[in-house]
Amino acid sequence: MSETGGALSGTDSGLAAEAAKLDADDVLRAKRAEFVLDDTVYLDGNSLGALPANVPGRLAEVMTHEWGTLRIRSWDESGWWTAPERIGDRIAPLVGAAPGQIVVGDSTSVNVFKALVAAVRMARDPDEGRDEIVVDATTFPTDGYIAESAARLTGCRLIPVTPGDVPGVLGDRTAAVLLNHADYRTGRLHDLPGLTARIHAAGALAVWDLCHTAGALPVGLDAHGVDLAVGCTYKYLNGGPGSPAYLYVREELQSRFDSPLPGWNSHAQPFGMRPEFEAADGALRGRVGTPDILSMLALEAALDVWEGVSVDTVRAKSLALTDFFLRCVEAYVPEGRVEPVTPRAHAERGSQVALRCEGAGDVMKRLIEQGVVGDYRAPDVLRFGFTPLYVSFADAERAARVLARTLA
Amino acid sequence: MSETGGALSGTDSGLAAEAAKLDADDVLRAKRAEFVLDDTVYLDGNSLGALPANVPGRLAEVMTHEWGTLRIRSWDESGWWTAPERIGDRIAPLVGAAPGQIVVGDSTSVNVFKALVAAVRMARDPDEGRDEIVVDATTFPTDGYIAESAARLTGCRLIPVTPGDVPGVLGDRTAAVLLNHADYRTGRLHDLPGLTARIHAAGALAVWDLCHTAGALPVGLDAHGVDLAVGCTYKYLNGGPGSPAYLYVREELQSRFDSPLPGWNSHAQPFGMRPEFEAADGALRGRVGTPDILSMLALEAALDVWEGVSVDTVRAKSLALTDFFLRCVEAYVPEGRVEPVTPRAHAERGSQVALRCEGAGDVMKRLIEQGVVGDYRAPDVLRFGFTPLYVSFADAERAARVLARTLA
Repeated sequence: MSETGGALSGTDSGLAAEAAKLDADDVLRAKRAEFVLDDTVYLDGNSLGALPANVPGRLAEVMTHEWGTLRIRSWDESGWWTAPERIGDRIAPLVGAAPGQIVVGDSTSVNVFKALVAAVRMARDPDEGRDEIVVDATTFPTDGYIAESAARLTGCRLIPVTPGDVPGVLGDRTAAVLLNHADYRTGRLHDLPGLTARIHAAGALAVWDLCHTAGALPVGLDAHGVDLAVGCTYKYLNGGPGSPAYLYVREELQSRFDSPLPGWNSHAQPFGMRPEFEAADGALRGRVGTPDILSMLALEAALDVWEGVSVDTVRAKSLALTDFFLRCVEAYVPEGRVEPVTPRAHAERGSQVALRCEGAGDVMKRLIEQGVVGDYRAPDVLRFGFTPLYVSFADAERAARVLARTLA
Repeated sequence: MSETGGALSGTDSGLAAEAAKLDADDVLRAKRAEFVLDDTVYLDGNSLGALPANVPGRLAEVMTHEWGTLRIRSWDESGWWTAPERIGDRIAPLVGAAPGQIVVGDSTSVNVFKALVAAVRMARDPDEGRDEIVVDATTFPTDGYIAESAARLTGCRLIPVTPGDVPGVLGDRTAAVLLNHADYRTGRLHDLPGLTARIHAAGALAVWDLCHTAGALPVGLDAHGVDLAVGCTYKYLNGGPGSPAYLYVREELQSRFDSPLPGWNSHAQPFGMRPEFEAADGALRGRVGTPDILSMLALEAALDVWEGVSVDTVRAKSLALTDFFLRCVEAYVPEGRVEPVTPRAHAERGSQVALRCEGAGDVMKRLIEQGVVGDYRAPDVLRFGFTPLYVSFADAERAARVLARTLA
């Protein structure tokens, strides 16, 4: 037995050798050094990205110099005030958006609320008969809860359906549709271009949740005419635990974006301190209250790792990693012990592999004890996320080997 | 001319000597060493509190150990998941609340929205005829903008009045009243116990914004039967730029608190990933999305400075500081150049002194250039905040002296 897995059979050593060759040829391999990593095989970057090595130093400077010395002057002199739109413009190229359409701030849930209520208002002006919100029934639950609240507050009916069934329920009463780009549990990638086109054909607005795809694969918000989008920044964007989320509002819609959370940061003259609300121009309308500077500037530093990285390259490596991991699982894990629920077809796969497995909760605990960190999603799913910037093919091979040993 | 102010006349030197004596007798004087300060007279802690010296070290540990090494495990092992309620319980004694009623998270604006919509829903069950929200017309603008949105989404009429006029507009149609404990511009302290009692007598709910009082004076939320309250943590609580705000929900109301932002963090079983929303028990209902851990744990560390500090002691020093500053201004500043708009009566004074002054914007710029940092609020107010934990009487005397020289 090796320290890090089981004894290698002929096939095993073949896959290990193949992993070594794939890693040697990996054009992203130098990126791994930009993260704080150890011997752990970390396959949970789809839940919390690893720490980029430059973040602690940058945040120390923010604390001691910008807060500690300049204090209040930093809102202006250190660019704190404009951080939400500046960092939004850093995220924009990663999701296929031109500048000026994304602001960072608040949680994903809060941004889903802004996007959905604003979408319903836009759909109803002038078409007042639109009173239905369609929501992905397989969504990460918070989207569904918030959609229900948005429906209640706007007098809409909520229609939960699986993404595949969306076209069948669209009609002239549909105001907005909230969908996930990838299913958080199975890793299935949904057809953003096709569904957006169907939603538009019905005269409704498309709101996409990019939590599980931004930073892992090309999204193409502008190219596909997405109306509104939200996403978190702590998964593939490595912004840190609970780092602020973002909101995309397509440029043509910004003048009609009527936020249900019109805080002072979205006012045309925030320091005018006027009693009447007058919305700012542009994506700034998506801002609400005072931005959370420490978390926001940690995210800004974390985005430095994307310097010189193309999302297409990331996607190519992501697919190669998940393909290779699935091959290793097939080769190593005894027949019948796990069942991949992530689609084989590349066009339907995000950047994770979900395996249905009896006793998945306990199995994941044992994997973690052995230094292979994925996560468990009720009731029976082992979830392994592949972050192309720092996960290697050797990691994928070792994870499959430890899984096989654990299930043996 | 001394380096730090004008030549001292007889009266001046008397006040300087008095400041030295007051500082020597100050029971809070040792607290100053727990902050990062320099030669600046920092009178803007009512906008952004100074950096507590322990924060950078604590946050470095959070980044390198909790995020960098434990990564995803920290949600459980480092207590990240329970931070909103744990830190809420640290704030509770500062605002006169028993444990289990405060959660930290989101911005003040977002918490105002939760509180007001939930208050209207509670007031209407079973009294459906309540369709008016009364709001402080002199409020910090974001509260007014958000109140307008809450009114629009709940089908209420918004009634903006000055706090003194609130009793006159209360009636059986009043659902909720949103008031500021202190006026952000003038520093006037409003009568929280009296107004809360009047609001209750009308059958409505009282929502208080504590941004300008928490950490500066006793609030007494439980004692005065306040229903809901919100506040920021970056002023007198020194949590850092844009640090998360908090929401107080009185214990008796928690089972009826029906949030308009029911994110997955407020679910009874957040990791059950259930499609149907079922609200958690207690103050947790005020949580929404994933908590912003870096900012939140910086705040937690910042709260360490309150160890062994009584809010009554803070209040006594705050009043002594503002009294003394007003005396220095009277003694030093040429007649007619400034007019205090902060009330003289202690019962009506917060922890700031606002001076109306011609050309206040430019005057404040020149004060800042000379190392006296307050802030300017349109159209003509110089605002000086007194944070008793780190502002000295010598600071107050020097600020008045530099102001006098600037206006001479």
